[in-house]
Amino acid sequence: MPQDLLKTINGPHDLKALSVDQLPQLADELRECICDQISRTGGHFASNLCVVELTIALHYVFDFAQDRLLFDVGHQCYPHKLLTGRQKLFPELKTKGGMAGFPEPRESEFDLFSVGHAGTAIPTAVGMAIGDTAIGEGHRRCVSIIGDASIINGVSMEGMNYAGTLNRQFLTILNDNGMAIGDPQGAVAQYFDRIRVSHTFDDLKKRGKEILEMIPGGSYLEDFYHRSGEVIKAAISTGHVFEHFGHVCVGPLDGHDLPTLVDLFNEVKDIEKPILLHVKTVKGKGYVPAEGDPFRFHAPKAGVVVNGNGEKKVEEALSKGELEKSDCSVVKKPACGGKSFTAAFADGMKGLMAKDEKVYAITAAMPDGTGLDKVAEAYPDRTIDCGLAESLGMDMAAGMAKSGLKPFYAVYSTFSQRALDQTFQEVALQGLPVRVCMDRAGYVGGDGAMMHGFMDIAMNAVFPDVVMMAPSDESNFNAGLEFMRGYEKSATFIRYPRDVVAAEELQADVPKYELGKANLIKKAKGKKPDVAVLAYGVMVYTAAEAIRELEGQGYDVALYDARFAKPVDMGLVTELIEGGIPVVTVEDHGIVGGFGTMVLEGCNEAGLRTDKLKRIAHPEKWMYQDSRGGQLKDAGLDATGVASTIRKFLDKLSHDVNVDVKTKSSQQVAK
Amino acid sequence: MPQDLLKTINGPHDLKALSVDQLPQLADELRECICDQISRTGGHFASNLCVVELTIALHYVFDFAQDRLLFDVGHQCYPHKLLTGRQKLFPELKTKGGMAGFPEPRESEFDLFSVGHAGTAIPTAVGMAIGDTAIGEGHRRCVSIIGDASIINGVSMEGMNYAGTLNRQFLTILNDNGMAIGDPQGAVAQYFDRIRVSHTFDDLKKRGKEILEMIPGGSYLEDFYHRSGEVIKAAISTGHVFEHFGHVCVGPLDGHDLPTLVDLFNEVKDIEKPILLHVKTVKGKGYVPAEGDPFRFHAPKAGVVVNGNGEKKVEEALSKGELEKSDCSVVKKPACGGKSFTAAFADGMKGLMAKDEKVYAITAAMPDGTGLDKVAEAYPDRTIDCGLAESLGMDMAAGMAKSGLKPFYAVYSTFSQRALDQTFQEVALQGLPVRVCMDRAGYVGGDGAMMHGFMDIAMNAVFPDVVMMAPSDESNFNAGLEFMRGYEKSATFIRYPRDVVAAEELQADVPKYELGKANLIKKAKGKKPDVAVLAYGVMVYTAAEAIRELEGQGYDVALYDARFAKPVDMGLVTELIEGGIPVVTVEDHGIVGGFGTMVLEGCNEAGLRTDKLKRIAHPEKWMYQDSRGGQLKDAGLDATGVASTIRKFLDKLSHDVNVDVKTKSSQQVAK
Repeated sequence: MPQDLLKTINGPHDLKALSVDQLPQLADELRECICDQISRTGGHFASNLCVVELTIALHYVFDFAQDRLLFDVGHQCYPHKLLTGRQKLFPELKTKGGMAGFPEPRESEFDLFSVGHAGTAIPTAVGMAIGDTAIGEGHRRCVSIIGDASIINGVSMEGMNYAGTLNRQFLTILNDNGMAIGDPQGAVAQYFDRIRVSHTFDDLKKRGKEILEMIPGGSYLEDFYHRSGEVIKAAISTGHVFEHFGHVCVGPLDGHDLPTLVDLFNEVKDIEKPILLHVKTVKGKGYVPAEGDPFRFHAPKAGVVVNGNGEKKVEEALSKGELEKSDCSVVKKPACGGKSFTAAFADGMKGLMAKDEKVYAITAAMPDGTGLDKVAEAYPDRTIDCGLAESLGMDMAAGMAKSGLKPFYAVYSTFSQRALDQTFQEVALQGLPVRVCMDRAGYVGGDGAMMHGFMDIAMNAVFPDVVMMAPSDESNFNAGLEFMRGYEKSATFIRYPRDVVAAEELQADVPKYELGKANLIKKAKGKKPDVAVLAYGVMVYTAAEAIRELEGQGYDVALYDARFAKPVDMGLVTELIEGGIPVVTVEDHGIVGGFGTMVLEGCNEAGLRTDKLKRIAHPEKWMYQDSRGGQLKDAGLDATGVASTIRKFLDKLSHDVNVDVKTKSSQQVAK
Repeated sequence: MPQDLLKTINGPHDLKALSVDQLPQLADELRECICDQISRTGGHFASNLCVVELTIALHYVFDFAQDRLLFDVGHQCYPHKLLTGRQKLFPELKTKGGMAGFPEPRESEFDLFSVGHAGTAIPTAVGMAIGDTAIGEGHRRCVSIIGDASIINGVSMEGMNYAGTLNRQFLTILNDNGMAIGDPQGAVAQYFDRIRVSHTFDDLKKRGKEILEMIPGGSYLEDFYHRSGEVIKAAISTGHVFEHFGHVCVGPLDGHDLPTLVDLFNEVKDIEKPILLHVKTVKGKGYVPAEGDPFRFHAPKAGVVVNGNGEKKVEEALSKGELEKSDCSVVKKPACGGKSFTAAFADGMKGLMAKDEKVYAITAAMPDGTGLDKVAEAYPDRTIDCGLAESLGMDMAAGMAKSGLKPFYAVYSTFSQRALDQTFQEVALQGLPVRVCMDRAGYVGGDGAMMHGFMDIAMNAVFPDVVMMAPSDESNFNAGLEFMRGYEKSATFIRYPRDVVAAEELQADVPKYELGKANLIKKAKGKKPDVAVLAYGVMVYTAAEAIRELEGQGYDVALYDARFAKPVDMGLVTELIEGGIPVVTVEDHGIVGGFGTMVLEGCNEAGLRTDKLKRIAHPEKWMYQDSRGGQLKDAGLDATGVASTIRKFLDKLSHDVNVDVKTKSSQQVAK
């Protein structure tokens, strides 16, 4: 099946030229195209198969050159991208110059926001609806598409609440596949479960068209809604949770029934009311043998994304554990071999939990991504998934700490931004010993600009007394976690990258963590080295490699694992600066407010000179999708880049000294 | 009425010794006590009168030495504090050493969290419930009390969703007085309105006791709930929005009916299910003449809080506009006379809106506090209150900017923390020109540690390309707002304090804002001044005063209004530093990551020395309730403190130079 129809679709206008009867074939082809691609490069999988029919029907009925289509999270955007002129970008999915894995306005005007964090579609859609109406463009329709996990995120519910007051067209599609990234959590998820299996849904598919013909359009809907009989009420559900939020609620309906979806969108597209369309879709629709196997799908074996040789059916890969059970596909695993920091974290947590029954672990819908799925296997009662609600996770941790537990909150650095205010008021201000474990700190690779952990130091360093750490390798990670377990005076933060831990560690015996103490990794040869490098986290290994290069060029360099960004080891820094030794900090965090700035601020407080202090960190610019290695290289944070920056810095310093000496000489001559 | 009963209450044990018949008198006395106090010092008013009976009934039935009581926002905690041994602290409400205006664990073990931001009660209660159960203290009951405005805040709804899955006692009291700080917003508020006036509520008060006797306790409740007839269903409401969140919903009931509340709490306190008790209370219960005027209340005339001579009935004060219509009382107004920055902002906004119809203003439930109530009077259609949902406000602004409007989001600095992730992804990453106007930047006075704006620079400065500003006075404010209106390349931020604008401005003609350009306020006398001061925002005036003192002592000082924290005027800074002129930055923001750090980072990037750069800012510690003036003084940020720090800095520099000279001399001698 060579994707004949799909090839003719260069944009929604081509799609609109098809007959409704042709759409199911297009759906088949889209599915095949996606499966084929994922087999080669990896990428989000099940979530995209879910929305194939929805996406086709939306583009068939609406005109998103004018109308507004907002994705929530956005990893379900592949069908949308393939229908809006981006088939050529697909082969290079999530790589530099290729197709972004999330909606990306730099690619196409059909993408309104570059998103990846949850809960944004509805609240931004509210803003656009207000904006369009205000600006005289109220005819532009507004459609949000959001999953059942995201819709219970706080800002999403805030958006639903406000949207319910809008007196204009505003369609929200709840794509309910019972699939959070982890398992669905919370009472609303249970409620969705109940209505998913309720009699209405079983009946609806059969009655779909009949019902739809009875839905009145326009402003009569509400009137009809109140006067309607049982049949319409089966489709326009009463007592739906979001009815209280002011939305006319329709469904649940079969989200794979293309003709019905087309009819339905035609019916509701001009209704000047907020409508929630609740559709039921099937995870990874198309690959389950029980579905009748109309397609042959292929999925990459985990970890072989780059060369992509493995060709297996998804179900086989799943059963062998070669494909992650969530929709987060294999590209999330490091391309290079070795044990990930995430896996090291999971092992470390299990170690802590074995020795201390007060240790609890929390995740916000990311059990796989954070490694807590492994922890949950060993300690199911002490591992909590709070659902896609990062703020809630931090507050739950605060409450648990207040009750005397030792909560470890495992959260991606970028998602911890969503809990900043909770970290401030409910944790830091109370002095509660919540342990925040921030995975994906630094550049994250293919997921792109919205997923880097580049501000966790800057935003948390402002809180008095908190402790901020980063491990350079697995032994240091374990030592750091053990420090956190025992530290009860305040919140502690540990950050680690989407990368592998070193197979061979720099130190045979890793010393215990001592508050605010750096760890000497490599002494200089002489008493006064040419430069001392303070590296933070995994950059210790990058710095070590850079130093090998520098030493080959005759430089004498000392290397420290800084361990703490707060408090900085100012004893060490003062000794170095006062000894006239140039200091270079290296970190995988933004240059603004990062570890280097913490050192700089410490020096300034102490009245020390800082012209011999150089900070190497992320440059102040957005870094788009690429491999993590490519991003680090671009940023000058690979070993070669770090060595080069250090060399230039030292050259400049010696040049300045020479100039200084010359200036003084000439001054003396003048005198 | 000399508050006979109240005086005998030194803690909940004394309350429990009273008979139920005595409780209404205690309620009267509490009300009188609160009104009396507010008349003298100001403080949160209507919200405290609301919860008098609720608080009494809670302490009468529960044992909060063991059980957990969590307030949301917490400004309704006065009755709670008065019943838990803190009557002596009340006369010094919101002042240093007196009673905090919000729950404060440093005051009493009956206060679990120091809170002031909304939405925290339920999610932290979930954490405590899990923690207590885990630690073998599951007998400790958990009670949250939250208003109808707060419960629709995102993290609150996230908490409700998770709480619905708890298999243990978990009581949430929805204190529904139809009173957000502004007007209630959103569809759920409208829903509350509907059920508030529904037939069930009118009937319930009469039938209260009868109904309650029929509510079965313990684990039978759910069973009964499903089998029950109409009468119980009137109290245990079906179809309540939070029923979908897994809570058994009871009410709405009369929140001022003490005997019923006591009976009810006794009935539900041991039910091992999440229960939402929806009570209806009356704003400022007790002061409305229509209520029968059982009390004489007194309220301070706005602005005379300190000497508190004015004695007027609240309703008179209200009618004359001397008391704010919200529950935010007069202490929020600056004690000193003059026009507030908030009022200047409102006037400035009206100016922008008059000349540019694309300008819109947004507030998150703070129309009074931000001054947008005044703007809304002039431009009701272009002023939007999104409700107590700060994240939503930022996303709506993003959507509106995307549609081509010029949204100005007026938000307290401390509450902008709740929208950090939205600022990151939905605004900064998209390069959208959202204008963020941050009131209450810096120390805020009596509201205490959780309300200071001390991290808005640190958390937003990490975003590439954004612009950060602060006005020193009203003319600069207007110039800054005009700059923001015209700047379309990225987000812009402006911060201003809870303070007054200068009556006499330093400059007769204020130049336009030019991106990244500081404004010279006062030239030095000589070519090389002893020091150049770069002050940010209102601190320009403090610095000017400090400089007058320094000049009297013979120092020659130049003063600049920095205007921009991002981008910093590095041309100026470089010229100063390279000219050997010491530079001092002065700001009302945390020392970590503030304006001074932006200057410091800029110098470091440029390879400049920074030992002659001194940053004056908030010290790195929590600052508790006091007047704003007192807090600034404590922080060394009054004119005297600033002058003293500058003097010491200059003395140290000249000492260092002398030592340097001596060292060099001795070295030369040694040679």
